[in-house]
Amino acid sequence: MRADGRKPDDLRNIVITPHVNKYAEGSVLIEAGETKVICTASVEERVPPFMKGQGKGWITAEYSMLPRATQVRNQREAARGKLGGRTMEIQRLIGRALRSVVNLEALGERTITLDCDVIQADGGTRTTSITGAFVAMTMAVDKLAQQHNLSKFPITDYLASVSVGVVQGEPVLDLNYAEDSNAKVDMNVVMTGEGAFVEVQGTGEEAPFTKQEMEALLQLAESGIQELIGKQKAILGSAAEKIGK
Amino acid sequence: MRADGRKPDDLRNIVITPHVNKYAEGSVLIEAGETKVICTASVEERVPPFMKGQGKGWITAEYSMLPRATQVRNQREAARGKLGGRTMEIQRLIGRALRSVVNLEALGERTITLDCDVIQADGGTRTTSITGAFVAMTMAVDKLAQQHNLSKFPITDYLASVSVGVVQGEPVLDLNYAEDSNAKVDMNVVMTGEGAFVEVQGTGEEAPFTKQEMEALLQLAESGIQELIGKQKAILGSAAEKIGK
Amino acid sequence: MRADGRKPDDLRNIVITPHVNKYAEGSVLIEAGETKVICTASVEERVPPFMKGQGKGWITAEYSMLPRATQVRNQREAARGKLGGRTMEIQRLIGRALRSVVNLEALGERTITLDCDVIQADGGTRTTSITGAFVAMTMAVDKLAQQHNLSKFPITDYLASVSVGVVQGEPVLDLNYAEDSNAKVDMNVVMTGEGAFVEVQGTGEEAPFTKQEMEALLQLAESGIQELIGKQKAILGSAAEKIGK
Amino acid sequence: MRADGRKPDDLRNIVITPHVNKYAEGSVLIEAGETKVICTASVEERVPPFMKGQGKGWITAEYSMLPRATQVRNQREAARGKLGGRTMEIQRLIGRALRSVVNLEALGERTITLDCDVIQADGGTRTTSITGAFVAMTMAVDKLAQQHNLSKFPITDYLASVSVGVVQGEPVLDLNYAEDSNAKVDMNVVMTGEGAFVEVQGTGEEAPFTKQEMEALLQLAESGIQELIGKQKAILGSAAEKIGK
Amino acid sequence: MRADGRKPDDLRNIVITPHVNKYAEGSVLIEAGETKVICTASVEERVPPFMKGQGKGWITAEYSMLPRATQVRNQREAARGKLGGRTMEIQRLIGRALRSVVNLEALGERTITLDCDVIQADGGTRTTSITGAFVAMTMAVDKLAQQHNLSKFPITDYLASVSVGVVQGEPVLDLNYAEDSNAKVDMNVVMTGEGAFVEVQGTGEEAPFTKQEMEALLQLAESGIQELIGKQKAILGSAAEKIGK
Amino acid sequence: MRADGRKPDDLRNIVITPHVNKYAEGSVLIEAGETKVICTASVEERVPPFMKGQGKGWITAEYSMLPRATQVRNQREAARGKLGGRTMEIQRLIGRALRSVVNLEALGERTITLDCDVIQADGGTRTTSITGAFVAMTMAVDKLAQQHNLSKFPITDYLASVSVGVVQGEPVLDLNYAEDSNAKVDMNVVMTGEGAFVEVQGTGEEAPFTKQEMEALLQLAESGIQELIGKQKAILGSAAEKIGK
Repeated sequence: MRADGRKPDDLRNIVITPHVNKYAEGSVLIEAGETKVICTASVEERVPPFMKGQGKGWITAEYSMLPRATQVRNQREAARGKLGGRTMEIQRLIGRALRSVVNLEALGERTITLDCDVIQADGGTRTTSITGAFVAMTMAVDKLAQQHNLSKFPITDYLASVSVGVVQGEPVLDLNYAEDSNAKVDMNVVMTGEGAFVEVQGTGEEAPFTKQEMEALLQLAESGIQELIGKQKAILGSAAEKIGK
Repeated sequence: MRADGRKPDDLRNIVITPHVNKYAEGSVLIEAGETKVICTASVEERVPPFMKGQGKGWITAEYSMLPRATQVRNQREAARGKLGGRTMEIQRLIGRALRSVVNLEALGERTITLDCDVIQADGGTRTTSITGAFVAMTMAVDKLAQQHNLSKFPITDYLASVSVGVVQGEPVLDLNYAEDSNAKVDMNVVMTGEGAFVEVQGTGEEAPFTKQEMEALLQLAESGIQELIGKQKAILGSAAEKIGK
Repeated sequence: MRADGRKPDDLRNIVITPHVNKYAEGSVLIEAGETKVICTASVEERVPPFMKGQGKGWITAEYSMLPRATQVRNQREAARGKLGGRTMEIQRLIGRALRSVVNLEALGERTITLDCDVIQADGGTRTTSITGAFVAMTMAVDKLAQQHNLSKFPITDYLASVSVGVVQGEPVLDLNYAEDSNAKVDMNVVMTGEGAFVEVQGTGEEAPFTKQEMEALLQLAESGIQELIGKQKAILGSAAEKIGK
Repeated sequence: MRADGRKPDDLRNIVITPHVNKYAEGSVLIEAGETKVICTASVEERVPPFMKGQGKGWITAEYSMLPRATQVRNQREAARGKLGGRTMEIQRLIGRALRSVVNLEALGERTITLDCDVIQADGGTRTTSITGAFVAMTMAVDKLAQQHNLSKFPITDYLASVSVGVVQGEPVLDLNYAEDSNAKVDMNVVMTGEGAFVEVQGTGEEAPFTKQEMEALLQLAESGIQELIGKQKAILGSAAEKIGK
Repeated sequence: MRADGRKPDDLRNIVITPHVNKYAEGSVLIEAGETKVICTASVEERVPPFMKGQGKGWITAEYSMLPRATQVRNQREAARGKLGGRTMEIQRLIGRALRSVVNLEALGERTITLDCDVIQADGGTRTTSITGAFVAMTMAVDKLAQQHNLSKFPITDYLASVSVGVVQGEPVLDLNYAEDSNAKVDMNVVMTGEGAFVEVQGTGEEAPFTKQEMEALLQLAESGIQELIGKQKAILGSAAEKIGK
Repeated sequence: MRADGRKPDDLRNIVITPHVNKYAEGSVLIEAGETKVICTASVEERVPPFMKGQGKGWITAEYSMLPRATQVRNQREAARGKLGGRTMEIQRLIGRALRSVVNLEALGERTITLDCDVIQADGGTRTTSITGAFVAMTMAVDKLAQQHNLSKFPITDYLASVSVGVVQGEPVLDLNYAEDSNAKVDMNVVMTGEGAFVEVQGTGEEAPFTKQEMEALLQLAESGIQELIGKQKAILGSAAEKIGK
């Protein structure tokens, strides 16, 4: 039994609310327990300079936390005049993960920017961002596919992400902040609907971990991610059926 | 009749939802039509260097828009590495306006930071931020007053703000983005519960305006602000009665 | 009687010295008592990216103070690596005010940059900058109109600015620094030669103000501005007669 | 057989040259094939502000590439005025990995900064940096331990790192740049002398990977890291024997 | 005969106007032909961190050009967000040169900041800044010496600076911008009243120069500098007599 | 006799190792005693915007020190977010010096960037950088001349640089850090193979210097530079013979 009453392999309560923004081509509010992230997908009919003329599109992500998303107020990165290392690392991860399930040729010379803005943080903000951003991106791509009558749906598979870790000696799924602070091992896993790994990032800063622990964690992550993909499908409705087609 | 069916002296639909953040000492989501702003008040037991040792507190504000709060996505100021002039101007205005109704000596050597994050923008984001931030600040001050048993309630009067402008030749209240883009005169007014002016900022970039127009606009603003203060009182409940005591 | 011997509706001693810079298309040194500002107008045969291809020109302004323009030396913004909020707010105001009396189509695809550099500050630097910059701009436009034989003179009306405020309970015109520091209300007003308002920015940070105070202040501002426009005309000579033609 | 004649489980030629800097408390030049990194360890008798007064030390790392470390010259981050996301991610990784084998209490209130400067890059710069920085850090700690007669040697275990990946369908160890560019999966692994994982970062941007592939890669990494630790021991000599004591 | 009618060893018309700023402890406007620089000296009763506790003072300088000091408008360094290399080089030179004639122990733990703001530039702005800053600094030091009854006057010798160069094959003194642009050799010389060199910076970017040319240039510089020192003495009056005492 | 056993006119031990980088078009490691600098020359087939369309090439330089090149670790300029004044001054000097012996028309519309990265510093890093960069540049130009069959070899003369100074009353050549810290006069000299001056930068911050001292220093510099040019020739081999042809 965990402090909040969950079993080791329980996700937190996951709520995905679509269409929370009236301008964005795709948008959701995703809540994983007390972690709340607004994900919007913005489409532009151009690609960044380094991609020009290749007949391919681009997917990129930005991540930010509101100053009071956390227990103690954080200074805004805009006020400090630069992005922190953690922010850069996270937005690189989100972009890379989403690109792994997008056929950039099928997308055409367009950029989709996923903005993941954490309204409230209670652990797992990067994994929750990926899970939510996938839904916002799919909504935007679905609109694009209809408007431009794309012959191939540019999204090739489902994608979701969750954190796992070893807390008080036991592998657990979807850590909240209190658990995360006490975890001996902390691992973020991104997987596809097919069950393949896109990213595995495990850190044992407090204490190194064994191959056995790693396997147990990956198992937990896999089941959690399949559950998350179920929730994505429910929200996406008919768009979900086009994925991989 | 205006494009959205309002009469010239109608506010948009105003909804103030309290306690939207579990960490902040005070918080609201304020909606004015399609404009949505999260306002949080964060209390720190210290003042900025230039205020040290004076036995007084400080009120400051920060303002930001999510990148897709607008029709076309804006680049993040954190990514550009600096705050824009518009942002600085707005956050200076919010801070100045709120300080005008706070007794800084009664507050003691504390800082309250009001973060106004625009989730969706449809005109009037600065005035809506002031109106919402006043509620979040009062919640935080009420908590402080109880915890520290302050002898004097540090908030001296109500405060709210609204925009007015001349659109198609007619003075109107609480402009949305479409109206604002076509306004010949654009004025932001901040007033107290007592009906005195704290800020009047009128701009006739497209065309200068007359004294008569100005008077008509101020009249509209006054009635709109009294209505907004009514809504603030309803949300604040018992804390509202302590104001000015 | 005020500390420096002026009556409430007296301007300080205003001196406008033209042609203080041998390179700029228009330039003045404007002195309002001990406040001294060099205003230069620089013409470029191109417009900023966001204005391209519209057949219109652009007017923009930059404002700065020398480090020792003030009693206590200020750090240079160049050394700090960014413009402060006050600077941005002021230069946005100057640009906006000047644009209100320029016919941008008549100007053609050109940019005029007004640099207002405060050599010495004793209150009213932003209003003095506007009054001086109008003269420098008109000189530069006059040169342009002659060189390019413009069919319509691009400046449509006179423009000047002054500060007013309530000091020791009395509305006064053109505050110096000592008065400004003690003012309960501080208002900057920009008006045209026709007597219409372009900007009204009133702030009652120390104490809110009434409609009656506001009216008295606007009255004072109007008379001061008409006097300033008289001085502008005297300096501009024949160019003055082309305005609005 | 790989393009450079290595077998899948062959490391490149590894050369660690100690004492390449006459000022640093510890220093090596580490070469992995054509990848060359200078690692220096600098000791300061103070800790960063967030660590003050806890009786513990701190280990931090910085990473940089000379502009012409790569085939095409890169702009300096100092000239661009900010660290890139990749640099930040790498230096966070190096610091975190090294801290996992340091007893910060035993170190005392001191900071050791590991500078990893890539002189020439041919793949694997981050893993090579970790392997080299561990040696430089141990040299510096050994000096400290002797000078200050530390009762406990602050380094608790060996640490080295290597990259593995799937190239042309086959799992291979220690990828050079040409291999890395064509890898379907790219994984960086950090392990201790005891054989436990400290960091596992696997990315399948081009194509997701299976659990079987992951296991094969981790196996390769483990054998490579044990070989690297053998080389570290040879260089460290007597200091090596104090580790974990 | 030079283009402006001067002989090779003629300075331009030099005018030094004292007390041009009502706040600064020392100030001059120095004009060398069409080059015009405002130099102010600001005294602070503290030293920078790296000088603390040594019982010595510090002299530092900052240099800037107004945007339209030049034929073509320059972007402000504050707007670009950083100081250019040329600016840094010049302000380092000014500070170093002035410190060479100040007894920092006699000054006590105080900082004097010399601000050299170029109002109009026509060649020789850095040398003119040094010559003017020396006067402003001496005025400020004289005030300090009187207020604090310093036993030793902290300025040990006169100091002035001039440019020399080889233009159309002939060595000339005090180049204006047109000459400077065509000079084959460009040299800035700083000398003391005693006739010793403090700085010699000669550059032959267009063409290297011989020892003979160098000697001729230094000769010219020496006579020019003695003439400049004569002008400094005339302005400084009684303060001049305290130098070196 | 100097502290390290050298006579006043002795250079330190100079070692130039060519081809230390496998990617750069030209590269050396140059050592002057304990000062060690990697110089690489990178060729790009384009020129900076301000040089476009003139049929001429460009030579530019960048200079940096590794953080632990010095006794006490320095903060990285990339981490501080800006280049320091000293760095800018040095890289401007290196670029200017090298350009003085390059025929930019003969080079064609190409840029050569010289990166001088100080691996270890013991005085004279800027002069050593110039001497080494000349060799790297000549290697790169030689390659270019062969590949593109240039009709004229773009390098017109040799170029080297050395520091001289007055230490303990005596003029000495090629100061190490300990000598430099105690020098009363510090001078950096750049000369061509023909024996002409390209840069002379003498500073007497601690004490001004006489014409006699200056002449003695220039004499020393000249002999040192001729010796350095001898070493450059030995390394350059056949490329050396093309210079000035």
